[in-house]
Amino acid sequence: MQIEIWSVGKENDTFINEGVLHYFKKTKPYINISLELIQLPKKAATTDVQRTKQLEEEAILKRLQPHHYLILLDEKGKLHTSPQWAEQFQQLMNMGTKTVVLLIGGAFGVSENIMKQAKQKWSLSKLVFPHQLVRLLLAEQVYRAFSILHNSPYHHS
Amino acid sequence: MQIEIWSVGKENDTFINEGVLHYFKKTKPYINISLELIQLPKKAATTDVQRTKQLEEEAILKRLQPHHYLILLDEKGKLHTSPQWAEQFQQLMNMGTKTVVLLIGGAFGVSENIMKQAKQKWSLSKLVFPHQLVRLLLAEQVYRAFSILHNSPYHHS
Repeated sequence: MQIEIWSVGKENDTFINEGVLHYFKKTKPYINISLELIQLPKKAATTDVQRTKQLEEEAILKRLQPHHYLILLDEKGKLHTSPQWAEQFQQLMNMGTKTVVLLIGGAFGVSENIMKQAKQKWSLSKLVFPHQLVRLLLAEQVYRAFSILHNSPYHHS
Repeated sequence: MQIEIWSVGKENDTFINEGVLHYFKKTKPYINISLELIQLPKKAATTDVQRTKQLEEEAILKRLQPHHYLILLDEKGKLHTSPQWAEQFQQLMNMGTKTVVLLIGGAFGVSENIMKQAKQKWSLSKLVFPHQLVRLLLAEQVYRAFSILHNSPYHHS
């Protein structure tokens, strides 16, 4: 199995980028993980929320393949604990999942259509965090989940 | 009012430090905020959990002053939303609170005694995050709370 974090929006600030790479490096012995930014062309920039969400939907659907298992990060999604994240990934591996896509939507969330495509919705917190910070939290949490699955001492609760 | 984040443990990795400073800078127009590390002397390092918690307790109590309003960050604490964080800070200001201390415990949590000293317990998430990342999340969330109180467009939900 491999994991791709898809995130709508602009490039990471340096500190976020360093942090994400920090955790990716630690995760690599366990599983392949990458971050892919979904960016709209600059000329598509618009203040029309519905139009923006539609353009983002198109960009996401264009990437989505049948071997992708789409999990949407959503404030209203399921609030798992860290050991539950580990269990979820274990189940996905048991199902023979090829690629798990963890999707972080844009500033206005994702379209209804993408909502429907998502197999699951997970929430990191009831708090709202900026998208860049969500990328970093996800990178750390995936590392934590796999270190739980590998009985590494990283997670002790 | 001013806010102090107290965190038991070692110096920040560079990316965490940059991130924390990034949010502190944005928060400064609204409120004074700082991060203070509570570090045990190296020779006090021990693998004895109870002893470590006791040493940490002593270090925390030595700092704690009557004008400090202590809020403990704890997994089992209250899961507020971001607007609720804003409300909480507003209430503390209304009460004439001088200094809010947001305490992040050590790897093994804090002692019973510190638990009792805490006026409130807040949780960032049901997920476990490393202490350094909690410092960064806190810095961002305090900024978000005050930008909500100041009607800045940073938070839109």
